[in-house]
Amino acid sequence: MCLPVASCLVSTTDDHHPLSWLSERAEQRRAAGLRRSLVPRAADSPLIDLAGNDYLGLTRHPEVVAAAVAAVREWGAGSTGSRLVTGTTELHAELEAELAVHAGTESALVFSSGYLGNLGVITALAGRGDLIVSDSLNHASLIDAARLSRARIAVTPHSDVEAVAGELANRTEERALVVVESLFSVDGDTAPLRELHAACRAHGAVLVVDEAHGFGVAGPGGRGAVFDAGLAGEPDVVVAATLSKALASQGGAVLGSAELTAHLVDAARSMIFDTGVAPASAAAALAALRLVRRDPGLPELVRKRSWELYELALEVGLRATPPSGAVTSIILGDPEAAVAAAAFCLERGLRVGCFRPPSVPDGLSRLRVTARADLSDFETDHIRAVLRELAASRDSFEHRSRHRRLV
Amino acid sequence: MCLPVASCLVSTTDDHHPLSWLSERAEQRRAAGLRRSLVPRAADSPLIDLAGNDYLGLTRHPEVVAAAVAAVREWGAGSTGSRLVTGTTELHAELEAELAVHAGTESALVFSSGYLGNLGVITALAGRGDLIVSDSLNHASLIDAARLSRARIAVTPHSDVEAVAGELANRTEERALVVVESLFSVDGDTAPLRELHAACRAHGAVLVVDEAHGFGVAGPGGRGAVFDAGLAGEPDVVVAATLSKALASQGGAVLGSAELTAHLVDAARSMIFDTGVAPASAAAALAALRLVRRDPGLPELVRKRSWELYELALEVGLRATPPSGAVTSIILGDPEAAVAAAAFCLERGLRVGCFRPPSVPDGLSRLRVTARADLSDFETDHIRAVLRELAASRDSFEHRSRHRRLV
Ligand SMILES: Cc1ncc(COP(=O)(O)O)c(C=O)c1O
Ligand SMILES: Cc1ncc(COP(=O)(O)O)c(C=O)c1O
Repeated sequence: MCLPVASCLVSTTDDHHPLSWLSERAEQRRAAGLRRSLVPRAADSPLIDLAGNDYLGLTRHPEVVAAAVAAVREWGAGSTGSRLVTGTTELHAELEAELAVHAGTESALVFSSGYLGNLGVITALAGRGDLIVSDSLNHASLIDAARLSRARIAVTPHSDVEAVAGELANRTEERALVVVESLFSVDGDTAPLRELHAACRAHGAVLVVDEAHGFGVAGPGGRGAVFDAGLAGEPDVVVAATLSKALASQGGAVLGSAELTAHLVDAARSMIFDTGVAPASAAAALAALRLVRRDPGLPELVRKRSWELYELALEVGLRATPPSGAVTSIILGDPEAAVAAAAFCLERGLRVGCFRPPSVPDGLSRLRVTARADLSDFETDHIRAVLRELAASRDSFEHRSRHRRLV
Repeated sequence: MCLPVASCLVSTTDDHHPLSWLSERAEQRRAAGLRRSLVPRAADSPLIDLAGNDYLGLTRHPEVVAAAVAAVREWGAGSTGSRLVTGTTELHAELEAELAVHAGTESALVFSSGYLGNLGVITALAGRGDLIVSDSLNHASLIDAARLSRARIAVTPHSDVEAVAGELANRTEERALVVVESLFSVDGDTAPLRELHAACRAHGAVLVVDEAHGFGVAGPGGRGAVFDAGLAGEPDVVVAATLSKALASQGGAVLGSAELTAHLVDAARSMIFDTGVAPASAAAALAALRLVRRDPGLPELVRKRSWELYELALEVGLRATPPSGAVTSIILGDPEAAVAAAAFCLERGLRVGCFRPPSVPDGLSRLRVTARADLSDFETDHIRAVLRELAASRDSFEHRSRHRRLV
């Protein structure tokens, strides 16, 4: 234990190793209010969960649980290898077929996470000598994917179609990808997909849309924002999705033409050199997908719940972002205020997300509040009461966080 | 369907879209014998599996299955969020504590895959202005991690300690990581860990060891090659492992000091911005780990079986690599010969891996044969018979593959 960094560096020879800089870095983060920690949750937590991404409330649905249990029993706990070797079970193939039907694409390819799906598809489609036009609010996995591809990267202001068209028009590269989220994960807004596609079409670029927060939530019956925009199945549109949010499980998927997914089987390093997703996770996602297809009202319900939460926040005088899917953000400003507000909610039975830099820009620390299709009216009433209290004591947070800063 | 590429490009306007190059690329791969496809396996396959990475044969072990089933029932199918938000259950914390005990490190951090664990730890420890010394046979995830970090990368010849020391001595960067696998995934050999560590110590560098194929297999009771080399717990050694091979499940882990894992919680993008591994996968890995700790003879058994397979291959006149863990390779040469040999084995009831470029260097296409602790003597006899037949008909493969090339 050595808190003052300077003394730490000279204290004992034990501290003189090539990772001693970690303690200094930790101290800087602590001073800036940016340390994070993992807090295990209990299985029987009485909290109202407004932090998770189980948007449709399906992760404990009896049919989802039964499918996962049956898969473990039938296939074992692991897929045992790369999808190219032993890691493709019949379940994986079935899931891919039904995902493609739901998205309105010819084909789908499942990855072990949405993160690796994004890395795989973008690095397989773009490389040195190509251009990637990337929205300024894109998710970390899309940013990492673009960096890893070694294409030139042009970051455009959030949802600015003219800027995108400008980058495409002025490029010297033959090939270009435009990469966006359909529903942005933190602000919860929708990308102007039709306009972006028109710009891509005009300039011979491919539109890659990450539907992590849209698949199962947006569009008719949760078929996604790309489907909703009439772009499903277009040869110059590629969709990425996750199995870990509305589909209540774990994994990712890329959806598009059969030629695209065949190319990924040959070229996507993050699929070729990675163990296939566990059979139980594939089975759970498939069961969740079938539930969504059987009850197209579910996705509508989560959108309705989410809009209610947004209106609640405004009603009590908080600053919030209008949701097009399941996510709304309550903007608090500095990281300490956001941390204090999240703790305030927790004490009152609400688990909310707390986003600070580098997850969000400086000055926009916030509570991220996600709705679930299975939120009850009773729960909504409690949420209203807590948000009202939070708004009333906001000054004290801001004071507290200023005070902390001075210490 | 358009096979001749030239006519494809001019046939219909439908084909004029910015992904039309995919069909041309597919055709090139086909001509070079490098197309891949996903072949779903059945749950009740009668094949002897020598291709998967379920080294200890635990993925269907009753205790592993029971633990996964209980976790699905108790926690649901998904972890529902980032480990920083809702994705850390008590199971994740328990697993981390026991992984660290087994590896002999202070702490462990679980990722949703070994791939993302490697990306996370390397990008959190190295960046622009640093040096990464990377073994020429390192796994794709380590290569991608190094690229993504933006550090300068020096690739050294396989297991060449002098070359590593030379790169470290001649560097201008203050910080350096040396990155290797403990048991290399394809050739199955062990890295000279003690010598590499001495070079790191002498030159103030960190040694990062990917124990994907060593954890649960190498060292006393499967505690890993790093433990075996007496390096567990050293402040300048970082271990990465997967839950998807000996531990029969899905996920990855980074093992080292508490300061290291705390740093990763603050800085590893592939953990912060990724959904936590599914509860069932965490529980299955934990159950497998407990089985290994209860029966330290299991890892020994797989090493013995693997050495037997290697000797079988030599005995019948095939060229094979001596295994230090569970993997031996039978070198065939060109990709068509490897594909034909894998098909030959499959027809005779053996599922073996078939590795071609870019997974292995040109001219070193091969069968990758992995042992399992639960292979029976009866199965070994059958394997011997098939390998003998394979060796006897080798000429015909080589002929067949030359013939194919000419077409
Ligand atoms: C927009 C977006 N893309 C990709 C991912 C990664 O998906 P996964 O968690 O399944 O790896 C996430 C969240 O985790 C996300 O929010
Ligand atoms: C050496 C090595 N590192 C990392 C990985 C990735 O692990 P995972 O499949 O759990 O993502 C693998 C294999 O898949 C591997 O062989």
